[in-house]
Amino acid sequence: MCRIAVIPSVNETCTDDLVGKTAVVIDVLRATSTIITALQYGCEGVIPVETVYQAKERQQEGTYLGGERNGKKIPGFELGNSPFEYMSPELRGKKVILTTTNGTRAIQKSSKASCVVAAALLNVRAAARYCLSLKRDIAVICAGTKDRFSLEDGLCAGLFITEVEKQSTERVDVDDFGAAMRSSYFHVKDRLEEEILSCRNGRRLSNIGLEEEVSYCSQTNITDVVPILVHDTLIAKF
Amino acid sequence: MCRIAVIPSVNETCTDDLVGKTAVVIDVLRATSTIITALQYGCEGVIPVETVYQAKERQQEGTYLGGERNGKKIPGFELGNSPFEYMSPELRGKKVILTTTNGTRAIQKSSKASCVVAAALLNVRAAARYCLSLKRDIAVICAGTKDRFSLEDGLCAGLFITEVEKQSTERVDVDDFGAAMRSSYFHVKDRLEEEILSCRNGRRLSNIGLEEEVSYCSQTNITDVVPILVHDTLIAKF
Repeated sequence: MCRIAVIPSVNETCTDDLVGKTAVVIDVLRATSTIITALQYGCEGVIPVETVYQAKERQQEGTYLGGERNGKKIPGFELGNSPFEYMSPELRGKKVILTTTNGTRAIQKSSKASCVVAAALLNVRAAARYCLSLKRDIAVICAGTKDRFSLEDGLCAGLFITEVEKQSTERVDVDDFGAAMRSSYFHVKDRLEEEILSCRNGRRLSNIGLEEEVSYCSQTNITDVVPILVHDTLIAKF
Repeated sequence: MCRIAVIPSVNETCTDDLVGKTAVVIDVLRATSTIITALQYGCEGVIPVETVYQAKERQQEGTYLGGERNGKKIPGFELGNSPFEYMSPELRGKKVILTTTNGTRAIQKSSKASCVVAAALLNVRAAARYCLSLKRDIAVICAGTKDRFSLEDGLCAGLFITEVEKQSTERVDVDDFGAAMRSSYFHVKDRLEEEILSCRNGRRLSNIGLEEEVSYCSQTNITDVVPILVHDTLIAKF
């Protein structure tokens, strides 16, 4: 049997939820969508760090600094948190040190798990396949925004569960929060982009001219890249 | 405009979420369903307290002690936490001091709000109507179980939101978690009882022979009784 528990936002993650499990971190708008895109376009690895200070301290020849605070690029950093910036051929074979308000913190908080996987709508089927291959219980961590649940992360968690259920040969046991997210996803699946554009983060990003990014991040299963944490770096698993 | 925010479980409730608002506390299995039933059957008032000690200390002539710890009746208490026990004509005109694992704690934690209302599936339409009459923003607190979200409370929150939207003449602004609960409710509304029987608390109660209680608590809008907190006592508002 495969057990899946979903955690509504990063602050509610505790060590007991993670030990011995596979942690799946979801931050659809935008950290995990950006990480997936970077690795898909040839970036060698993304190093998630919590603070701007840590990012600057770790910078070295051949690495780029990327990230945001409250949706804005950080002064002195080459890159922000837009997936579009990470499609550049310049990043091929290079590493990026990334710090964002919620997503990279969620990845760091998940490091007590046996394996940490980054998922978003873009790669959710491949992420489900990879997690099943690890044969462990799964904790899905919705990064949320400033300690609050974000709808787009919950919908992605719901789709992740349905992908696991489709692919698993064993029984899948889903906790109450996961069951709610799965129902929620099913109810809006035919208008997912519209739903994400109208939730809090979708509106906030659209209001500052980033509607196209929200639409990009609302696409499902456009890549098989699964970022997994190896030591301190997220690398691509195909 | 009426704003509704939904809080996934009692431990995530903070004062900022409550001040100046109407708090709607939901514990479908079973505290708020039991409180509604008690008042519907003529009980004069229910005094929610956090501890067994507080309950015993406040007992006086003509009051009953009710409650549970981990689903079981408390030694020395006349009543447990089953709505069926509270249908007794003996309780007519009497007060009950009630302490439960999650629901009464959620009511006490909500006391910073301008008004505290107890809701469950049994009274959700009437609860929505009463809340709208107060013309304040609404914080819906899902009691959950041991600091974890419980599906039945989330589904009830989703139905509460749809009732507010139906009845309101103004625009209703729903937060991300509320939107997820609304979608989740819509997806299962034609098999609500089945869904509640299969979630964690539904299974737990069924396993100890309380399936009929779960079915009773899964009924929607069977009463117009709305328990509201006046000083320290929940009394019926029709």
